[in-house]
Amino acid sequence: MAKDVNPPRGNRDFLPLEKQKREQVLGVIVDTYRQHGFQQVEAPVMEDLARLTSGQGGDNEKLAFRVMKRGEELDRALAENSGGDNLADLGLRYDLTVPLTRFYATNRTKLPNVFKAIQTGPVFRAERPQKGRYRQFVQCDIDIIGDSSELAEVELLNASLDALTAIGLSDATIRVNHRLLLSTNIASLGVAEDQASSAMITIDKLDKLGIDGVALEMEAKFGADVASKTGEWLHSIEGAVAIPAELSSLFGIVGARHPGKLRFDPTLVRGMGYYTGQIFEIEHPGSGSSIGGGGRYDGMVGRWLGQDVPAVGISIGFERAVDLVGDALGGEPEGLVLVLEDDSAAVLASALKLQGQLIEAGEPSVRLERRPKKLNLLLENLAEQGFGRFAFVNAESADAGVAGLQVKDIA
Amino acid sequence: MAKDVNPPRGNRDFLPLEKQKREQVLGVIVDTYRQHGFQQVEAPVMEDLARLTSGQGGDNEKLAFRVMKRGEELDRALAENSGGDNLADLGLRYDLTVPLTRFYATNRTKLPNVFKAIQTGPVFRAERPQKGRYRQFVQCDIDIIGDSSELAEVELLNASLDALTAIGLSDATIRVNHRLLLSTNIASLGVAEDQASSAMITIDKLDKLGIDGVALEMEAKFGADVASKTGEWLHSIEGAVAIPAELSSLFGIVGARHPGKLRFDPTLVRGMGYYTGQIFEIEHPGSGSSIGGGGRYDGMVGRWLGQDVPAVGISIGFERAVDLVGDALGGEPEGLVLVLEDDSAAVLASALKLQGQLIEAGEPSVRLERRPKKLNLLLENLAEQGFGRFAFVNAESADAGVAGLQVKDIA
Repeated sequence: MAKDVNPPRGNRDFLPLEKQKREQVLGVIVDTYRQHGFQQVEAPVMEDLARLTSGQGGDNEKLAFRVMKRGEELDRALAENSGGDNLADLGLRYDLTVPLTRFYATNRTKLPNVFKAIQTGPVFRAERPQKGRYRQFVQCDIDIIGDSSELAEVELLNASLDALTAIGLSDATIRVNHRLLLSTNIASLGVAEDQASSAMITIDKLDKLGIDGVALEMEAKFGADVASKTGEWLHSIEGAVAIPAELSSLFGIVGARHPGKLRFDPTLVRGMGYYTGQIFEIEHPGSGSSIGGGGRYDGMVGRWLGQDVPAVGISIGFERAVDLVGDALGGEPEGLVLVLEDDSAAVLASALKLQGQLIEAGEPSVRLERRPKKLNLLLENLAEQGFGRFAFVNAESADAGVAGLQVKDIA
Repeated sequence: MAKDVNPPRGNRDFLPLEKQKREQVLGVIVDTYRQHGFQQVEAPVMEDLARLTSGQGGDNEKLAFRVMKRGEELDRALAENSGGDNLADLGLRYDLTVPLTRFYATNRTKLPNVFKAIQTGPVFRAERPQKGRYRQFVQCDIDIIGDSSELAEVELLNASLDALTAIGLSDATIRVNHRLLLSTNIASLGVAEDQASSAMITIDKLDKLGIDGVALEMEAKFGADVASKTGEWLHSIEGAVAIPAELSSLFGIVGARHPGKLRFDPTLVRGMGYYTGQIFEIEHPGSGSSIGGGGRYDGMVGRWLGQDVPAVGISIGFERAVDLVGDALGGEPEGLVLVLEDDSAAVLASALKLQGQLIEAGEPSVRLERRPKKLNLLLENLAEQGFGRFAFVNAESADAGVAGLQVKDIA
């Protein structure tokens, strides 16, 4: 009897056409980043659980999948009966940033002083599954570690905008803010310094709550005076906002290459606590939520290394980007199916010879199929998988050569 | 103070040059498989633990990393205090075959009747780490599900030999046997049918123990008569062995394209219990152990589906293959470094403009670097990462254009 055979909750299978599109989009993004002088590196999928839960990962730490100890260590932990935390020693990475900072600390002597990294790969979060949220999904990050100058931000933004354009998302824009500007603004509303993060959490809800909603929540948290100042501030920046001196050179230089693609947003917060400077969020008119983001996190590498190293990164949310791409990339050329007229060794040999010649001639995909009773069903089926043409092969076909094949479109 | 910052035991970081080589080799393998009409698919890294430990994965099942339950489910399991098995609900895949059979059962109505799959990706085994054994490593599989004819074996062997040649391992050969032949041979030694697997385990040690060692172990297990027959049999096949009728058409057809690449080995066993027909093992003179293998496993999909579906697959052991490749693929063209003469916005703008023009002209990697105090150190460092040329850029460089750049080799 058939059993339940779905993938685990919140996880997905990718069938041939979808997988092909994902590989194609990922390939274009990586190629663009490599053209900009970034280099791919890879860290393990698992990290020590203690590192994943050391306070660097923000709310995501709570979502880490925990991998159980094994053998005698597990037996000891079970015997101690001291709760779940003691039973796991490893965890699945929930982002690529925490592992990258560990990677840099491990390998710094073998890396250039300014390390420009590309990382792509699956990350895992034990989220309650819902539309558009998965327990395994792909992130696509570039980071520059070791450069405190704005050149790093310029390169990240330039490369990201080029990559987005290359996958057909040239309408994407990037909202920019600076954590120090944000802190100054929040202080000027009358919020005490030790309450600033709480105020940020409220301001971060502006998209959802609107100005009045934010003011209301600020009132509940900090009183009427702060609320009224917050309302005034938010109204004052509703229209065009002058780019502050702190960001003017960044906007000037990136704008020269990508006019109008950066937008200053003094209310941009970005959730993670580790940001220390410029912060970014990528938007696209086709998506209701952000399709990526990042920022400067100068304090994080120091947690492993014992000495601070400047760092800044930006991530394209691959799942949302892929959804937006649609068929914009146009897909690959459609594959060719050779249908063997019968099961004889002579026909098979003929087909194999032709397959080899077609591959050498540059055909991207030449598939062999035995002739079934219902040819139409087979062809329909293959059309769904991206095969567009077919030809019959008999024992004499190889002698006639590639030119002799009667290739027909799968209508 | 610096903390211990190594990757978890048995796991590896991949630095830029090594990662580039891995991506290149993997890309060539996948391209070759696609040319042969196979299509990439992807299943999740985690599967339900019950599926991973249902008896299909052989010895590997014991090596599955277990992922702990979460939230209330974990609390309940802890409260029951019924041991480790009850605390985990998911596991990390230890191979790509068990997940593929689940994938096929889940998605069969959306797949062609004959499904030709490429799967590449990390798998995880909680092995005691040792030289050449890792807890995360990449497998590279092709499988044909739904074809009981020998065409499937022919295609797998052809495509694998082409892929190995394409990555520079044209000296690879494939040992072939058939489980039914093996069973017949074992029966003729006087081993009872229900003892056949035990005999296979012993014969599988031929490489290690030699003929006398195998005969000795057979004597201990099955007595002197079986041992003597075993010795005779093994000596009789030491020289060239005639290809049996059951394999002659496979050898003929694959041999036409790849002469001398298949070798019949009547003692080949392959560890996994699920094989039902032809079995393969890939060898290369540069490696002491096999660099891949596979076989027909007609009973496995039926475990999920409730109805048997023929299936056969072959896997290239990516880690061993990559080690053998050396620099055979020749690497990518070496990147170009633009060294900014100073930190002014004018120089940066000039460099960015040139970078864009160079990328458009087809440079695969153009990296920007601020001029450091010790230029030689920077260049040495970048040479180690695969950058081979550099040029200085000042504010006027963009006006002079790409042709005006004085590109020098990093000596």
